[in-house]
Amino acid sequence: MAEKTIAERSLEKHGEWKGKIHVVPAIPVDSREDLSLAYTPGVAQPCLEIQKNHDLSYDYTRRWNTIAVVTDGSAVLGLGDIGAVAGMPVMEGKCLLFSRFAGIDAIPICIDSRDPDEIIRTVQLIQDSFGGINLEDISAPRCFEIEQKLKETCHIPIFHDDQHGTAIVALAAVTNSLKLVNKEISKIKIVISGAGAAGTAIGNLLTLAGATNIIYVNSRGAISRDRTDLNSAQAKLAQTSNPENLSGSLGDVIKGADLFLGVSAPKILTKEMVKTMAKDAIVFAMANPTPEILPSEAEEAGAAVVGSGRSDFKNQINNLLAFPGVFRGTLDCRASDITEEMKLAAAYALASLAPAPLTKEAVLPDVFDQRVVGTVAKAVEEAARKCGVARK
Amino acid sequence: MAEKTIAERSLEKHGEWKGKIHVVPAIPVDSREDLSLAYTPGVAQPCLEIQKNHDLSYDYTRRWNTIAVVTDGSAVLGLGDIGAVAGMPVMEGKCLLFSRFAGIDAIPICIDSRDPDEIIRTVQLIQDSFGGINLEDISAPRCFEIEQKLKETCHIPIFHDDQHGTAIVALAAVTNSLKLVNKEISKIKIVISGAGAAGTAIGNLLTLAGATNIIYVNSRGAISRDRTDLNSAQAKLAQTSNPENLSGSLGDVIKGADLFLGVSAPKILTKEMVKTMAKDAIVFAMANPTPEILPSEAEEAGAAVVGSGRSDFKNQINNLLAFPGVFRGTLDCRASDITEEMKLAAAYALASLAPAPLTKEAVLPDVFDQRVVGTVAKAVEEAARKCGVARK
Repeated sequence: MAEKTIAERSLEKHGEWKGKIHVVPAIPVDSREDLSLAYTPGVAQPCLEIQKNHDLSYDYTRRWNTIAVVTDGSAVLGLGDIGAVAGMPVMEGKCLLFSRFAGIDAIPICIDSRDPDEIIRTVQLIQDSFGGINLEDISAPRCFEIEQKLKETCHIPIFHDDQHGTAIVALAAVTNSLKLVNKEISKIKIVISGAGAAGTAIGNLLTLAGATNIIYVNSRGAISRDRTDLNSAQAKLAQTSNPENLSGSLGDVIKGADLFLGVSAPKILTKEMVKTMAKDAIVFAMANPTPEILPSEAEEAGAAVVGSGRSDFKNQINNLLAFPGVFRGTLDCRASDITEEMKLAAAYALASLAPAPLTKEAVLPDVFDQRVVGTVAKAVEEAARKCGVARK
Repeated sequence: MAEKTIAERSLEKHGEWKGKIHVVPAIPVDSREDLSLAYTPGVAQPCLEIQKNHDLSYDYTRRWNTIAVVTDGSAVLGLGDIGAVAGMPVMEGKCLLFSRFAGIDAIPICIDSRDPDEIIRTVQLIQDSFGGINLEDISAPRCFEIEQKLKETCHIPIFHDDQHGTAIVALAAVTNSLKLVNKEISKIKIVISGAGAAGTAIGNLLTLAGATNIIYVNSRGAISRDRTDLNSAQAKLAQTSNPENLSGSLGDVIKGADLFLGVSAPKILTKEMVKTMAKDAIVFAMANPTPEILPSEAEEAGAAVVGSGRSDFKNQINNLLAFPGVFRGTLDCRASDITEEMKLAAAYALASLAPAPLTKEAVLPDVFDQRVVGTVAKAVEEAARKCGVARK
């Protein structure tokens, strides 16, 4: 009998588990006295105090430690638009990881709408139930508008993990890789394949970290100011990237590049292309499950440091290294926002935890490294205080 | 030093607890293998199965056991409209009780809106994340419209506990009280003080149980077909109750009544009024925290069976006797609705659990009686199967 695939075993397990998180009492209720304190009539008093001062909801309820993991199911994993209800196993899984790795009470909310305004309104209306919102698996470019409007209008922190979690871990990996090859981020040529949510966020964070020469490439070639087929988000990218306004295919613009970051499609980067990159090239091919180029092929073609999105290869760019610590730090200081400074701090904190001495075999810490969440959280909290968004 | 009040102690406790429920992992995540099954890449498979058949969300996620406790904060306890965020301590308390008494994963959702259409839309959009919705502390008459439209448009069960939980427990108490005084529900005169959410629901369920002569009274007197000051819900009540179209004050219509049910205001029923009731009168004065008449006064005035909404008097009409079992039974058979038949079954099951032999000292079981949830759940599930709403 053939061995079962991961997919088959996961389906079986999900059928056994029947859910990956559950809600339990945080206090005992064993007497009428318990009932009168936790529920009526006693509970009226904390209600009245919160009515007078909404901030007290962080003291008298679980809000201080609770976030919602919100999706519309429009871009779930690599599966595309499978609908809100079908996204729930991923959302529950994410909540499980928030709980397991950071002790955060995370609640999955699947919103059955494709209208950004309706999704925004729904989150606005329920925000008072939570201390933060993790947006998940919402398709680009809708995710940009949804996140932006929510950040502007909500008084709790909003974080689209597919964008910023990926960007934080990618920057950490890039930071350590550049140390290994002794190059400066401000001086290198960077090609990002994929101009959607993750690619854009990676580029933005690298820019904040000092990058000056980023060329985005999508399936129709380099994003340049000459392109007429771009959506509004990509048109904006064209204005702020690609300083030499290069055009052409990936094969054209990869020549002389120091860093390739792929969040796009399987097998689009060939060994021949890698051979045209600069000396000591860095290749992070993060398309899942099949990367833009296999790490082994990239190495054979001369790349100095390689990584992917997969757990079965070295140097996995795994969001799990970021999101638990980012929200832990954010909640711990009751930050009103998750700022660029906080993301940068998270990336550098993460980079500092790679096994010493640094080698190209491991530019990031292991996901089960118990220092990760606390170290990232502390850095995020410090950054929040510095930029004035901490509220306690 | 004076002893602390319940309110003071509850506030202190809420400050120590910092939340009454929490979310925990239901499965271990200790290895890369665990991650690949519970999260990527394995989790894609249950997502794809649910995409093909939405009902599988009850098999592969926690939906089968998860409900939302939803409020807009417009009628929290006796506090009135204190706002969504201020209602959270009550919602968390309710979720705690769902978890503690019925093992249900209940999630508090406070919706910051006063617009019924917006509240309805929000619940519709997030319904796929849950197996049922418990509406809580929404003001009348808005609560009727919200519940009705949600029942019509959602494919999961909707239950407004302030209405139906109260009605179920009241009917159970009335059923046993009538046994004690040897009267039939179809032949008695019933006065319900309070024509809001709870009063209306109690009257409706008593009618289903056979009551034929109910007179509702609000602060301006009996609800009759001559009244011109009624809201739409009350105008409808006037058409279906008060067969003799009595008018006048509570003092006028209480004369000769066999049963008084109060869900209204403190101290509005006097001993003199009780003295004018029929022989072997039953008085349930459920206004909180101060009842329409103290049980001791009602007894002094000749009432045969008395009860209230308070835990420090006998015969407490406490929703906690109903809602855990009602939702347990509903979720166990994946009922698409909570029908009148299910509510009746819950009430009679509850009545059957009063201590035997039946006495006027205890017409209901204790809230900590461990038989309650299972017995109510079983009756609810059987009724759901009989009326064709069970889906498994």
